[in-house]
Amino acid sequence: MKINENFKALGVNYLFHDISQKVKAYAESHPNAEIIRMGIGDVTLPLAPAVVRAMENAAAEMGRAETFRGYGEYHGYDFLRDAIIGYYAKKGVTLTRDEVFVSDGAKSDAANILDIFAGGSTAVIPNPVYPVYVDTCVMAGNTIVYAHGNEENNFLPMPDESVNADIIYLCSPNNPTGAAYSKAQLEKWVDYAVEKDAVILYDSAYEAFVTDDLPTSIFQIKNAEKCAIEIGSLSKTAGFTGVRCAYTIVPSALIREDIALSKMWSRRQATKFNAVPYIIQRGAEAAFSDEGYAESRANVEYYLENAKIIADALKKMGIWYTGGRNSPYIWFKCPHGLSSWGFFETLLEKANVVGTPGAGFGAEGEGFFRLSAFGDRKKIVLGMERIFDIF
Amino acid sequence: MKINENFKALGVNYLFHDISQKVKAYAESHPNAEIIRMGIGDVTLPLAPAVVRAMENAAAEMGRAETFRGYGEYHGYDFLRDAIIGYYAKKGVTLTRDEVFVSDGAKSDAANILDIFAGGSTAVIPNPVYPVYVDTCVMAGNTIVYAHGNEENNFLPMPDESVNADIIYLCSPNNPTGAAYSKAQLEKWVDYAVEKDAVILYDSAYEAFVTDDLPTSIFQIKNAEKCAIEIGSLSKTAGFTGVRCAYTIVPSALIREDIALSKMWSRRQATKFNAVPYIIQRGAEAAFSDEGYAESRANVEYYLENAKIIADALKKMGIWYTGGRNSPYIWFKCPHGLSSWGFFETLLEKANVVGTPGAGFGAEGEGFFRLSAFGDRKKIVLGMERIFDIF
Repeated sequence: MKINENFKALGVNYLFHDISQKVKAYAESHPNAEIIRMGIGDVTLPLAPAVVRAMENAAAEMGRAETFRGYGEYHGYDFLRDAIIGYYAKKGVTLTRDEVFVSDGAKSDAANILDIFAGGSTAVIPNPVYPVYVDTCVMAGNTIVYAHGNEENNFLPMPDESVNADIIYLCSPNNPTGAAYSKAQLEKWVDYAVEKDAVILYDSAYEAFVTDDLPTSIFQIKNAEKCAIEIGSLSKTAGFTGVRCAYTIVPSALIREDIALSKMWSRRQATKFNAVPYIIQRGAEAAFSDEGYAESRANVEYYLENAKIIADALKKMGIWYTGGRNSPYIWFKCPHGLSSWGFFETLLEKANVVGTPGAGFGAEGEGFFRLSAFGDRKKIVLGMERIFDIF
Repeated sequence: MKINENFKALGVNYLFHDISQKVKAYAESHPNAEIIRMGIGDVTLPLAPAVVRAMENAAAEMGRAETFRGYGEYHGYDFLRDAIIGYYAKKGVTLTRDEVFVSDGAKSDAANILDIFAGGSTAVIPNPVYPVYVDTCVMAGNTIVYAHGNEENNFLPMPDESVNADIIYLCSPNNPTGAAYSKAQLEKWVDYAVEKDAVILYDSAYEAFVTDDLPTSIFQIKNAEKCAIEIGSLSKTAGFTGVRCAYTIVPSALIREDIALSKMWSRRQATKFNAVPYIIQRGAEAAFSDEGYAESRANVEYYLENAKIIADALKKMGIWYTGGRNSPYIWFKCPHGLSSWGFFETLLEKANVVGTPGAGFGAEGEGFFRLSAFGDRKKIVLGMERIFDIF
């Protein structure tokens, strides 16, 4: 047999492993240091009570003969797809059930969606970026063309007309930079995709953090239904990182080679996936209910206030940054021309604060740093005071 | 952009859709008919109380700050991997944690595992068979060579030395035929795989139904750790079809081109999957506990007794069959030389019993029929009495 040779081309990313090793070594040699972790890309607040109740009830249902459920609908129960349709209706986006595909995670969908595209496609991927887009394209044997983020474009790269993209990954608000595209900017991406006959894979995992007047769905942009797939998630919206529920929207109007991509994705999922647990789908339904949404929203507001505290401190220090609003992430230029890892070491040693070196998200991240608002308020305030004191 | 052209080669399988349409039409024109459904390939008994309790507790944990959990380990929490290792130890199979990969379903794994193999591989697939193996190989552009099941080989096809397989799918006890390989037969498959440098993808989803002295894991066969991957599931073992938890075993000794396939699968899953919900993993752990296992086992015994009732009735009628023991399925030759669909119609009209035409599982299934033991005892007894009366 032959293995998939593309795996040999995968870069080995030890970013979070290296960070934890360095922090561990520091903690061991400085047992009295109170280390504050601000590198975390994971939610920390507990689930909304309405969500917990819904999952407890659903678990109990599975234990009774009259309410037990076996295999579910491949693409999600109607009750959850209808809840997602209702959520989008509030954004001014009209969807039908056969355009909504419930899944176990935005990561799975962002990766598995490549199954419906030809291998060897040309993929435009922002840099710096969430590493999954790159790795999954490498596994599929795609050609990667980076869209370069930098200080000049506020880490919001725009289309390069000279590139003939087949696939375009966009993530807005962005992980790791926290930068979010405006309506006008997304219109340019949509126009470019239509012109190139490309498909945008739009990762809206952080849409719940948008508070300014910015798009929260690519489908708020004219013609996007002809060139975009949107991948949304409850991970950050409702604290579902350990609960696992996401959804992908493939509009019926998205047709290539006379084939509706929604039919291809439907077939892919029906063949290679077998639905999200009933219990989890009931939890997700509750997260979209008025009560569950308000409770989950309070958590998002808490993280947003944390983000503001971080951003305000950086502003006071005169440090250039993106994010800090419309996002749980703050992406900033390392002071004194320090490299990403140089700043990491300084921060750890002098302030006992842990963050994430920007270079870990791609070459364009060198010289930048990510702090996360997913943490305890008091610790974040203290962490920023310490950073302020040393710079 | 270009789509994955392999999708165009996918056959359209309307089997269960066609069945439900025909049953619906019959029910509408015969409103007083008491239709008995014996075509179902899904569990019907509620979850074990220990499993339900574990999931309720885990849901509650997610609602409290001090016990909330975000992202889990990609390949499953240690508590569940250790439970699976313990389950295999009872089979006489020794595993380590880095050989055990927890997932959302055997179907997902049986399909996604192809990511680590080169596209265009030669896959040996039994016929008749669970349709996912074929469809997923078509999507990957693999060449399919069928291993033909028939009355002569009791639907347990053996290796064909003239075929240079890269990948071999085996499912034992088999869906749809209920036939289960002996140790001697699996030894021949392992020898063949070693000789051809092929990898066996062994689907053990129905292993809990084995009561005779037959292997319940491919790793009970000498040298299998050098040529096999096993995909197990709690779907039928513990009634998890709507709960979604499975596992794949990739032995460390399985090496090709100097690369451990366990490392490739680890990378595939870490990149394209994000773990099973914490709540579900606690349920699965409970299913492997002494209490949960005994409770789930009672359900399996119930289905096995149903299977025996079906098999005994066919025996009395002098009808040739496989399965009926070591499996929830009974696969039999349609009486009077009827075709699969001809028998389906006769059964529906004369006995008001619904089953599954064998032709729906591949060309070799023509002239055969599947009945399922996943149902209510009284209805199954009545159904078999009706069948007995008409043949």
